[in-house]
Amino acid sequence: MKRYDCIIVGSGPAGLEAAVNLSIRGKSFLLFGNESLSIKLETAPRIDNYLGLPGISGRELQQRYLEHLDDMNIQLQTDQVNMVYPMGDFFSVAAGKHTYEASTIILATGTAPAKLLPGEERLLGRGVGYCATCDAPLYRGKTVAVVGWSDEAVLEANFVAELAGTVYYLPVRKSAQTLREGIHVLAGPPTEILGDQKVEALKTKTETIPVDGVFLLRESIAPSSLVPGIQVENGFIVVDSDMQTNLPGCFAAGDCTGKPHQLMRAAGQGQTAALSATTYLDRKAADQ
Amino acid sequence: MKRYDCIIVGSGPAGLEAAVNLSIRGKSFLLFGNESLSIKLETAPRIDNYLGLPGISGRELQQRYLEHLDDMNIQLQTDQVNMVYPMGDFFSVAAGKHTYEASTIILATGTAPAKLLPGEERLLGRGVGYCATCDAPLYRGKTVAVVGWSDEAVLEANFVAELAGTVYYLPVRKSAQTLREGIHVLAGPPTEILGDQKVEALKTKTETIPVDGVFLLRESIAPSSLVPGIQVENGFIVVDSDMQTNLPGCFAAGDCTGKPHQLMRAAGQGQTAALSATTYLDRKAADQ
Repeated sequence: MKRYDCIIVGSGPAGLEAAVNLSIRGKSFLLFGNESLSIKLETAPRIDNYLGLPGISGRELQQRYLEHLDDMNIQLQTDQVNMVYPMGDFFSVAAGKHTYEASTIILATGTAPAKLLPGEERLLGRGVGYCATCDAPLYRGKTVAVVGWSDEAVLEANFVAELAGTVYYLPVRKSAQTLREGIHVLAGPPTEILGDQKVEALKTKTETIPVDGVFLLRESIAPSSLVPGIQVENGFIVVDSDMQTNLPGCFAAGDCTGKPHQLMRAAGQGQTAALSATTYLDRKAADQ
Repeated sequence: MKRYDCIIVGSGPAGLEAAVNLSIRGKSFLLFGNESLSIKLETAPRIDNYLGLPGISGRELQQRYLEHLDDMNIQLQTDQVNMVYPMGDFFSVAAGKHTYEASTIILATGTAPAKLLPGEERLLGRGVGYCATCDAPLYRGKTVAVVGWSDEAVLEANFVAELAGTVYYLPVRKSAQTLREGIHVLAGPPTEILGDQKVEALKTKTETIPVDGVFLLRESIAPSSLVPGIQVENGFIVVDSDMQTNLPGCFAAGDCTGKPHQLMRAAGQGQTAALSATTYLDRKAADQ
């Protein structure tokens, strides 16, 4: 399997500026993100503190970012990154239905969900999952709940319904997409995932539904769920001034490292992370 | 005396982005720097990693920075900042021939001189100075050496020569300006400042000249000489992730905090420093 120098997770200013710098340094990398780059950016009406571009709109800046990627021939991968496994001297990354390898990781995942559901972390991989299209075959004929934050979650629920026996859908946000017939929509927001060794039920404000699996399809995954063993404090990834996390070769940048949540800070950290990853790679190459 | 919310020292991307953010937050501040903003920026032929502005020249980016300042009615003060004195709950700043007060400081002074001259720190204020126009009257009829890194240093040496008895000039870099007649130019670079309680002589590679005072007119002053008591490691100001230094209310951003020396990193740190200073000011106001 091809081993990339780096895999970047996230397409806000931190991830993009990391990609630009890795490209200049001649490193091989994959950049995972969304086609809109960043929903927060896209919806910003006016930005006054992006030095050099006073009074720019979020959509204009998004366009400039896309042009910058284009200018440097940087491709954006839009598969959802579900897991990053530290494997010793490299990382294994599960994205969509594929697995990739990279010597370094730059996490630029933005702000994480405010908080995890009770039971979520404990039962992760034991009935709790973040990628319905990946794990649906495990639930053939069984009962599954899908908790959805986005349009894509509806599409994933529809796919699960092709295989599973019974599918419940809990919409956290409204979606423009249409659910398949036969999917049971539950109104109440989920409050807890129950189960001893594996998932047994999903609790909402009003009821407890026995289920075999729960898919939580958020826009971003909490860093602690995405990367086993990464050090997190108050929901933010702990980094040093080089943007190094507690895992050697794994760097983080932007809103996922803490406040203030601002474009320029994020871009600056993305640059630092990329140059630190470059130093790490070059030192490793020299050691061999 | 008017007390500003903040004084920013330095007009590279860190200082400018700090100014932009303080302005948005409605804080009163002074921004000290050079008309060219940053010589390093001005002379950069092509910048590829300033996200949103691919392939821009240093001069074009300088122009965009100036327009951003103009757009937000931010004035640039071009007096040289010579000292920042921590006074307890505020700072006193000596710039040109004036003194200013501010509740917070943001140091964005760029890369410091590679190293200080032996004797420089020990004899600072005892014959060693960084502002010839400020201190020249102390040397009426005496013997003074001026070590110059810039065009402005030549002008300062000419001013000193109006008052001092004998003036030696040691050019570290060539200048387009012309020295006054009567100033003795020495070729050798300075190697040490000698003296017990006060300056007695300046040593060069080839000779030792008895002098009463030595002016070191660099483009930027070492942080430890600029701000008494500030914590410095390997020549860089020590900051936490909020850009706070060891002195409460004093923040630092950009190249003066360490490597990599890059525009985006500097701007991001300037933003963080400004927002941390804002939080500091708001908390202080709430306590009163």
